[in-house]
Amino acid sequence: MSETSPSAPPTPCRLLLLGYGHVAQAFLPLLASRSAWMERELGIVPVISGIGSRSQGLYIHADGVSANELASKLDPLRFFQSSGTRVERTETFIQTGAVVGASLLIELTTLNPHNGEPALTHIRQALTAGMDAITANKGPVAFAQAGLQALARQHHIQFRFESTVMDGFPLFNLAQFTLPAVGIQSFRGLLNSTSGLVLDRIAAGYTLDEAIQQAQQLGIAEADPWYDLDGWDAVMKTTILANTLLEGQVTPAAVRREGIRGLAIEDMRSAARAGAPFRLVSSASRKDGAVIAAVRPLRIGTDDILHIGKGTTGVICLETEAMGTITLVEHEPTVLQTAYGVLSDLITVLRRRGTD
Amino acid sequence: MSETSPSAPPTPCRLLLLGYGHVAQAFLPLLASRSAWMERELGIVPVISGIGSRSQGLYIHADGVSANELASKLDPLRFFQSSGTRVERTETFIQTGAVVGASLLIELTTLNPHNGEPALTHIRQALTAGMDAITANKGPVAFAQAGLQALARQHHIQFRFESTVMDGFPLFNLAQFTLPAVGIQSFRGLLNSTSGLVLDRIAAGYTLDEAIQQAQQLGIAEADPWYDLDGWDAVMKTTILANTLLEGQVTPAAVRREGIRGLAIEDMRSAARAGAPFRLVSSASRKDGAVIAAVRPLRIGTDDILHIGKGTTGVICLETEAMGTITLVEHEPTVLQTAYGVLSDLITVLRRRGTD
Repeated sequence: MSETSPSAPPTPCRLLLLGYGHVAQAFLPLLASRSAWMERELGIVPVISGIGSRSQGLYIHADGVSANELASKLDPLRFFQSSGTRVERTETFIQTGAVVGASLLIELTTLNPHNGEPALTHIRQALTAGMDAITANKGPVAFAQAGLQALARQHHIQFRFESTVMDGFPLFNLAQFTLPAVGIQSFRGLLNSTSGLVLDRIAAGYTLDEAIQQAQQLGIAEADPWYDLDGWDAVMKTTILANTLLEGQVTPAAVRREGIRGLAIEDMRSAARAGAPFRLVSSASRKDGAVIAAVRPLRIGTDDILHIGKGTTGVICLETEAMGTITLVEHEPTVLQTAYGVLSDLITVLRRRGTD
Repeated sequence: MSETSPSAPPTPCRLLLLGYGHVAQAFLPLLASRSAWMERELGIVPVISGIGSRSQGLYIHADGVSANELASKLDPLRFFQSSGTRVERTETFIQTGAVVGASLLIELTTLNPHNGEPALTHIRQALTAGMDAITANKGPVAFAQAGLQALARQHHIQFRFESTVMDGFPLFNLAQFTLPAVGIQSFRGLLNSTSGLVLDRIAAGYTLDEAIQQAQQLGIAEADPWYDLDGWDAVMKTTILANTLLEGQVTPAAVRREGIRGLAIEDMRSAARAGAPFRLVSSASRKDGAVIAAVRPLRIGTDDILHIGKGTTGVICLETEAMGTITLVEHEPTVLQTAYGVLSDLITVLRRRGTD
């Protein structure tokens, strides 16, 4: 279903990209591969107008570089830097965004589980400057979702974060667009790939350090793997889900948190041998008008639907009023799925522009 | 997120309901339970302006009856008939719809797996008359999806059918709204509850007739249970999925069909005892530019994700380019889930009115 006349010339959509780690590096080629689709379906061509990273600083490009051209380079970042202009790290996006005409921030910096900075400031400044904002970073959403959404509404723009939980699996969009008035009562899920993988590898006989190394080699571990293993990553995701799906007002500090650090290696192995391995389970439900949420290691037997979540596989099980129990499974995701979540948000923003 | 000003008076949305079986009887109270939500979020109050059934004829109500009032009656159909006007079964909806000002047809008649009639004619007439149409009936979609969608586009109205496959689980809406450009390559699924239940009950020692009776008591079997057991229901669903998710041009006759009729009772039982029970599996994939689709009984071992689809539980596993493999599970659905799919479509139609 084409949403614009095929004869209309495509409009550039100028993007500012902050963070240049695994997700950004997977996002660029994916964006390029979908550029023709976006031009055909939306009448829009994605153009990169700025790329910033903590280690290398912020570069902008007056004309922007099309995603197609950029992704075709052997080293896209170096190409962008050499053909662009380095700018001093400005305090606000108003200047940077205005210089290059960017209308959308893509925030892909790494998780800070203590206060969500500096991503939170990036997003707040972008929204204040009237730019739509998309993030794959859980921190700012977990700490300031309500405020950021209010800011977006106030400016009639969008703030989207689909890839913060189960990557590009449409959890938030599912709730917003395709399960209207379904009445979600509670959820249980396995949301942290690193913990799942580490628990599996330890059960298979590897040491903790070896298991962590394997997660890092797969590119799924957070910068500090203890963000995963101590449950911080899952706490951020559980907070966001509780606030979005259950309309809670949960803060990360209010989520009961217990990681896998306290489990004895031998207990992990004997639990797995007995057919009920430990998993790091996120859960939330309504109780006495409030939403209570927890992250903790639990033994999952074969009669529990979460049992299918082996290794990195993510699972979420929603209890709903009108649809009973539904379960969503993302099999062995990699960073590609996170990148797809960002693309999916970008398409949603472009489709909905002017309707918010 | 309220989509209208709270001070605007609610607009009635007048519905014509055709078919008064299990789904319609579950839909009415669900609609009533969500009327306040619809008024608050959409500024719209649902009103029933006509109810037709094959056995009792078509009744209309000049003012309409609010879903709330209707659902509060002990026998809603009898109340509607006694307070309304019986009309001769008209050949077109133009007359009936115009008389009562209905703008939306909800088509819930039973499946005719041979040509989709009379539901196909009902929907075609409604769309031609400028009414949005929603159906839970697989026949018209399987036989005439492309033509009906073209008709809807031509009139700038909507034709939706979420509940035809996996009830209210958002499969089509998932693809349309929340997995843009994901590149679905193929799917495999367990889509027929009756077959799943019958296979399970036979494995547990019941006779075929007893197993069929149990499916009928649950209200999940088609009017003729052999529509389910011979694979017709799954063929219809597979056709719709292949055409919607894989953009195929598949007809029901082109789907390779093999039901469970040919399986020996003892083979079903020994397969289940061996841990790899038979399931009626729907599948489709692209091959040489075309979409090929099949429905057939296969043995499903414990290492296959479809193994979780026990009894009536529905499962679909999508292979995608950008998101890898994702699996969606609807646990032990009943007619309530089908009714939710109709409600979900109704809300989607109302939200999108004027944007198509």
